[in-house]
Formats: sequence, C-alpha cells, structure tokens
Amino acid sequence: MIDYLGLAEMRKLIGELGVANVIAGLADEIENDYRRWPEFETSARLASHSSLGVIELMPTSDGRQFSFKYVNGHPKNTAEGLLTVTAFGVLADVATGYPVLLSEMTLTTALRTAAMSALAARWMARPEARVMALIGNGAQSEFQAIGFHRLLGIRELRLYDVDAAATAKLERNLRASGCDFETVRARSAAEAAHGADILTTVTADKRNAVIVTPAMVAVGMHVNAIGGDCPGKTELHRDVLLRGDARVVVEYEPQSRIEGEVQQLPADFPVTEFARIVRGEAPGRTSADEVTIFDSVGFALEDFSALRYLHRQLRARSEAPRRIDLIPALDDPKNLFALVDRSPGERLRRVV
Amino acid sequence: MIDYLGLAEMRKLIGELGVANVIAGLADEIENDYRRWPEFETSARLASHSSLGVIELMPTSDGRQFSFKYVNGHPKNTAEGLLTVTAFGVLADVATGYPVLLSEMTLTTALRTAAMSALAARWMARPEARVMALIGNGAQSEFQAIGFHRLLGIRELRLYDVDAAATAKLERNLRASGCDFETVRARSAAEAAHGADILTTVTADKRNAVIVTPAMVAVGMHVNAIGGDCPGKTELHRDVLLRGDARVVVEYEPQSRIEGEVQQLPADFPVTEFARIVRGEAPGRTSADEVTIFDSVGFALEDFSALRYLHRQLRARSEAPRRIDLIPALDDPKNLFALVDRSPGERLRRVV
Repeated sequence: MIDYLGLAEMRKLIGELGVANVIAGLADEIENDYRRWPEFETSARLASHSSLGVIELMPTSDGRQFSFKYVNGHPKNTAEGLLTVTAFGVLADVATGYPVLLSEMTLTTALRTAAMSALAARWMARPEARVMALIGNGAQSEFQAIGFHRLLGIRELRLYDVDAAATAKLERNLRASGCDFETVRARSAAEAAHGADILTTVTADKRNAVIVTPAMVAVGMHVNAIGGDCPGKTELHRDVLLRGDARVVVEYEPQSRIEGEVQQLPADFPVTEFARIVRGEAPGRTSADEVTIFDSVGFALEDFSALRYLHRQLRARSEAPRRIDLIPALDDPKNLFALVDRSPGERLRRVV
Repeated sequence: MIDYLGLAEMRKLIGELGVANVIAGLADEIENDYRRWPEFETSARLASHSSLGVIELMPTSDGRQFSFKYVNGHPKNTAEGLLTVTAFGVLADVATGYPVLLSEMTLTTALRTAAMSALAARWMARPEARVMALIGNGAQSEFQAIGFHRLLGIRELRLYDVDAAATAKLERNLRASGCDFETVRARSAAEAAHGADILTTVTADKRNAVIVTPAMVAVGMHVNAIGGDCPGKTELHRDVLLRGDARVVVEYEPQSRIEGEVQQLPADFPVTEFARIVRGEAPGRTSADEVTIFDSVGFALEDFSALRYLHRQLRARSEAPRRIDLIPALDDPKNLFALVDRSPGERLRRVV
C-alpha cells in the first residue's frame, strides 16, 4: 500500500538515467512547481535545535498531495564518520490522508539542491558564464558541479576547501563521472573566486563565517550561496549583500529571513522571491554588470517536486515497486482491533 | 542502520505480550515521561487542513531523542473502506540527527490513546468507579475498554453508537479478547451515560457535535473526551465544561486551546495540564462529588513514549530486527557521490 524508494532503488534509478539527467529532470519539475506557487501551502520549516545540530521537518501541500521531509544538519558528524546531512521524505494523498511513498532523501537532497541552484542560476547568471568557483568540496560538491555543467554549460571549476583531501575526492569523482571539466585547485577562497563568473559556496561547519568577502565578488558575478541555512550560520560578509548593484533572491521570504544570509540584515532589506522570477513578475537579472545573489536555504516545495518526480520514475520502471507494511488495510475500517484479535471469525484481508 | 517496526512486528509483539499488557506498559512509560515534563521541547503540532481532513506532524524531543508522528484524520474515509486515522512515526538521535526507528503507528496510536485515557482516569476518576459508558464504538473503542479494564478495573460497559453494527463488532471483539465485561447496549448516548461512573466519548465524524449534554453528566463522574481533537470538532456541550463543580484537565494547554473541547471557551477559562497532576503540583480530583473532565487531543510526548517503549520491546525480542535502507552509511562521509559513482576505485562499504 505504501511504495518504498530506498537507497537500492535510488542508486538503480540514477544508474539508469544518469546523474545529470536526474538533476535536469528535477530542475524542470521544481521550475514547474514554482510557476504554480500560489497553489502551495507555505510555512517556515519546523526546526528542533540542539548544541550539536538541528533536526527539521519541512512540510508543504498543493491541495492534492502533501509532502514532508525529515532532514538533519550536524556539522560535527563527519569527524565520527557520519554524514552531516541525512534525510528521508513522504508523499501523501490529501483527500484520504494516506501516505503513498516513503523515500530516501539523503541523495535526493543533494540532487534537488544542485537542481535548484542550477535552475536559479539559469534565470540569474549571465548567459555566457562558463567558469565557476566551488568553495566547499564536501558531500554536495559533485552534484553542484554536474548540475551547473548540464544546465549552464559550466566547463571550468576553480576549487577550494580547507580540507585538501575533499578537493582531491571531488576531482577524482568528477573525472570518473565523465563530465569534461577543467579544474583548478586554488590555495584560498579568494583565489578560487578570482576570474569566476559564478561563485558557489557550499561549506558546512562554520558558524557566521565569512567565506565570501566583498573583494571576492566581481561585477556581473552570480553568487550561489548554499551553506548558510540556519540561524547563526552564514557564509557571506554582510557587505556583499549590501552592494548597491546586488540583487538578492530567496526561496520563501519568511523562512529566509530566519535562516538565510539575509538574517544578517534588517527585516526590510529588499529581497525577491524566486517564484516571482519564474512567473515573470520580477527580473532574474537586469544588466550584465549586476551582481546576483541566490541566498538559498532549501524550501519544502523543492522536496515535494523531488518526491513526485522520483515516484513517477519509480512507477514507470516497475509495476510492483517495493512496498512496506507501514499502514494497515482492513475489510472493515471500524474494526482496527481485527489486527490484534486472532479469533478465526475475524477476517483480516491483508496487511500491505 | 534504521530499525523497522512494521505491522508484522507490531502484531507479533501484541500477540506475545497481550493487548492489556502493552497498554499497561505504555501507560507506565507515558506517566514517567509526563513526570519529567520540563525536559521536553513542546510545540503545538503542525496541521495541514483540507476540506476532507487534516494531516499532522507531531514532533517533540527530550534533548537526547527526537520523535515525530505523521497522523491524518479523515472522518469520511470509512465510507470508502479506509481508516479515519492512519499514522507512522520516527525516533531519532539528537546528537547525530540520525533516525533510528521507523514504526507503524496506526495500531500504536489506538494503544497509546487508550493508555493515556486510562492513565488520566487513574489520577482523576473516583477509585470505586466500575461502570463506564462508551459512546462511539469504532476503531478505538476496544482499546479504550481494555485499557480501562486493566488499569481501573472497569467491569461494566454501557455502549452506544449511531451505527449499531459498530456496537455489535465491539461486543464481539471484547468477548473474543477474554476480558470479563458485562455489556449493555443503550438506545441513546443519554441512556448509555445513565448510571456510569466514567463517560468515554470517542466519536469521529461530527463537527461541533453535542454528544454529551449537561443532563448526562452526574455528580462525581469522570468524563474522558477523546473525539474532539481539531478546530471545529468537539463533542461536549460547553455547559458541561462550565459546571461550577467541574475540573478540566488537558495535555498541553497551547494545543488544547486550539483543538480541544475548551476551544469553545474564552482563553482564560481555567484548565490544568496533566503533567502538573503527575508531578504533584495539582490535584487530579478534590472530592467524590467533583466532575473531572479529561479534554484529550493527544500530545507528541505520548508518541515519544510509545516509540521508545516499542523500540525497547523490539530490541529485547530480536538481536537483528528488520531494517530498511533509508539512510546511507559511507566510508567517507564527504563522499556521498560514492553512492552514484560506479567506478571500481570507489569503495562503498555498505548501504544499510
């Protein structure tokens, strides 16, 4: 009764479609959903903070389907061999309230974040952008690189991470992925940024860090700021946001005011919601010289899109996907006790 | 890596322990957790309403473990052979943010609701109470009956439901359960209430209904009001709450003001949180004549207790419980891409 998309199915799906195609498919799905923004129920995610990290529940609904994602963020996990971010999610039917899909979302979050970043950049970056600085070469970096390769034609990467082993891992993975990247290892974030058309920051373990200083941001640059996504966790110097020629785009303003780079600024600092750009209500960029900043924290709609895309792919590939017995099915819905009672008179049709 | 407690495990567990023992075990666990109330992170649940029902996420944490439950409420589902309420839940480790258990909670919700009802009644009802009116004989009724049998020694049930088939099903199930109940079928809710020491209402499909009128409530009665649990969904006439000799107890005041019977009353109407009673800060009952009302809507702490109890039982019974590949495990946590990359040089330790 409830479809299950575990890591086995996810890896199979990516193996069949290819990572770049999955990211492109997700970007289309997300773009279509942002286009129908008013249909969605939006709320800032529910966050449970501890001294070591955060656990979040991110729900949304378009009135027909409901989704939520469970996701954590624990920067110190890597020191113990654990992932900083793990996630899973559920898609449900609004009319009955029944869940229909349980899915892994650790890989999916990396894929959909890359899709969202590249999608925003397609609306905001200069069309001729070919060089991207990638600062932070951890778990999400390959996905970002491949997403920008596929959606924007990025061919040159300027890499930097405080951990040189992370950069080596990224280069190794990109070579194996078959994308024709030229990569340059920089000795600092500033060196990486130098000459880049697009500046992507995807660092994890800093609190109110200054990864991007005003001097690193060139005229006409697009800044894709992924890592600052939690109160007290930012990557950009506030003066980068305050440049007179900068346009700051966010996903969902009430959430970004709390969690995004703009948490550093007064509540009346002007930002543009991404949906307005996709819907033609605001420009993504007004001139070649403008500095565009996508202050991304991740929004529930993107997970909704991802779950729907993956469920469709799963169903298209298998008539009988793996299922789990999470929800009972009964002959008589008022007779839940039939699941307990073992007398022969009680008919228990099935438990699926 | 993540334990799975599906319906198969749940039915096996209940078969081995017995329903009454599971309810008693849950009541102890819930009572212990309410005793350490200040340790819990409390927030009203997150509700997504539609014209047909509601989907809720109910999170809480004691600083060491985090839990949430997904639960829906769709009164019209039964007409289509579907359950009104389905649920599942997750227990997670706060220090790492990793989920540790995914569990069915449809059955569990019925069990923990019965445990909570009987637990509250143990603190609030007259000790000599032996007769209970049970109004609403649907999916939860057997669990309520067995909970009160076990925890309070209820031996006589006065039953009423608008659907006579539901009452017949309840009687059949109770006979099969082996509890020594004497049951009486009433022709109305008022007739069921007549002579009862405890009045339990567990109806589903009415909106701002009046199941319990002032005339039905006798001096010294304990009212266990389960069914009103959502804005615009109540079971008690407001004058029942406004009796001069009534004491109204709720689980978590900010949530109950929105969802409980007290939503009918001004925000300053006095209520007592159940935790205060368990912690000895307020009485459950002050005299034999007092009317005690447990205005229950269900609170996240009760699901937290249930998940911890069930996980312990599961682990005690099996060294290798069923697991699902919802979360990846990697040699190098910065190398999430290893799940995608299929080049032989990449070591993928395992996916559990």
